Amino acid sequence: MPNPTAAMLVIGDEILSGRTRDANMHHLAGELAGRGIVLREVRIVPDDHAGIVAALDALRGAHDHVFTSGGIGPTHDDITADAVAAAFGVPIDVRDDARALLEAHYARSGMALNAARLRMARIPEGACLIDNPVSAAPGFSIGNVHVMAGVPAIFAAMLASVLPALTQGAPLLHQSLRLMRAEGEIATPLRDLAAAYADLSFGSYPFQRDGAFGCQIVVRGTDSVRIDAAMMELVRLFPGDIA
Amino acid sequence: MPNPTAAMLVIGDEILSGRTRDANMHHLAGELAGRGIVLREVRIVPDDHAGIVAALDALRGAHDHVFTSGGIGPTHDDITADAVAAAFGVPIDVRDDARALLEAHYARSGMALNAARLRMARIPEGACLIDNPVSAAPGFSIGNVHVMAGVPAIFAAMLASVLPALTQGAPLLHQSLRLMRAEGEIATPLRDLAAAYADLSFGSYPFQRDGAFGCQIVVRGTDSVRIDAAMMELVRLFPGDIA
Repeated sequence: MPNPTAAMLVIGDEILSGRTRDANMHHLAGELAGRGIVLREVRIVPDDHAGIVAALDALRGAHDHVFTSGGIGPTHDDITADAVAAAFGVPIDVRDDARALLEAHYARSGMALNAARLRMARIPEGACLIDNPVSAAPGFSIGNVHVMAGVPAIFAAMLASVLPALTQGAPLLHQSLRLMRAEGEIATPLRDLAAAYADLSFGSYPFQRDGAFGCQIVVRGTDSVRIDAAMMELVRLFPGDIA
Repeated sequence: MPNPTAAMLVIGDEILSGRTRDANMHHLAGELAGRGIVLREVRIVPDDHAGIVAALDALRGAHDHVFTSGGIGPTHDDITADAVAAAFGVPIDVRDDARALLEAHYARSGMALNAARLRMARIPEGACLIDNPVSAAPGFSIGNVHVMAGVPAIFAAMLASVLPALTQGAPLLHQSLRLMRAEGEIATPLRDLAAAYADLSFGSYPFQRDGAFGCQIVVRGTDSVRIDAAMMELVRLFPGDIA
């Protein structure tokens, strides 16, 4: 059975303007790989309703899961929930269960649940809430789309509560080997090896060390016996070059 | 006149698998902002021919410029040039000017220009070469697509040689103000201010300091007088909260 696939949609002007460096994508990639879900595409779009809707429609049709980050706070530039509702063609309004979470949180912290904060209880019809143990305002899952916060600690906490419910794939395994040979010198035998092990994927990533060229070969797949065999072939092909 | 827009296409399994953290997007975002070009979308796709072609077609039709990173090395997983040629419907082959650059480079460094390395001289018909001062293998521009290496030092050098030829927009300016107020408490006046200054964009980014909630307000636009006026309004709205 093929591994499930996923896409990520990062929403926020601050990433595209260069103000903020996204940290959630790298975290998601690692978490998904550990559960055998293949991250196949990432898109980063600004706080723009039509752009978010179009990206959601493209990604949710093409992948088993879509994870979004950003745009679910209380301010005017937080427009993700409305865009998700529009993409699914469902109404959105303040929902009692989400409001209750916020009421309890703000009562505990002595802050007012004002109109702006209540916006964070607006949930598209039919969605399931995602727990936010950091600041209460929930994310939500609707269809195959999981809508989470952009703040890295909250994104990670929400992801941790979403992942156990998803069907896992065969674990994505990888092994790597560092060779003190320039990429251009190992490219032809590496291509032939990749062709012989078409069920695996072979990546080659160049580096420099003390002025000498090397490359790291990464072999990825789901069959550990095949990966072991490919690694032994690599060692046989490039004896004396292993860094 | 509206500012030119741009998109970035990051190509590489290693980014999506979580092995490598992309650094080029953040660099590109900053460089474009400085020249008044608005980065409107980023996509990250794996080393997959059809996926690269589809992303190129979507992005080059929607934006003034498309910048790609990754997939132009000598190994079998470097398939960007072929995908770009396919997207533009033009043939691709080793080109004399690109071959001459590689010949000179490998002659200087005492390495062989073998068949794998010669793949890096394959250039889609009609493209202009982009200089690679680090390792000679050129990038190229075709139509509104600029094809560059994924290695950050080479990406940055190629970008520096591409940018001066592009039409600049009005500089994208921004000012910011840190407030020691939770986002939910400033959201309504901030929304009203954003509505009154619809020619500017207002972002709100929460943070915590010593357990207290604050937010950074970023005002972006091209008219410094308007940005100054909006900042003065912010100061007037939230006296005593400036961090």
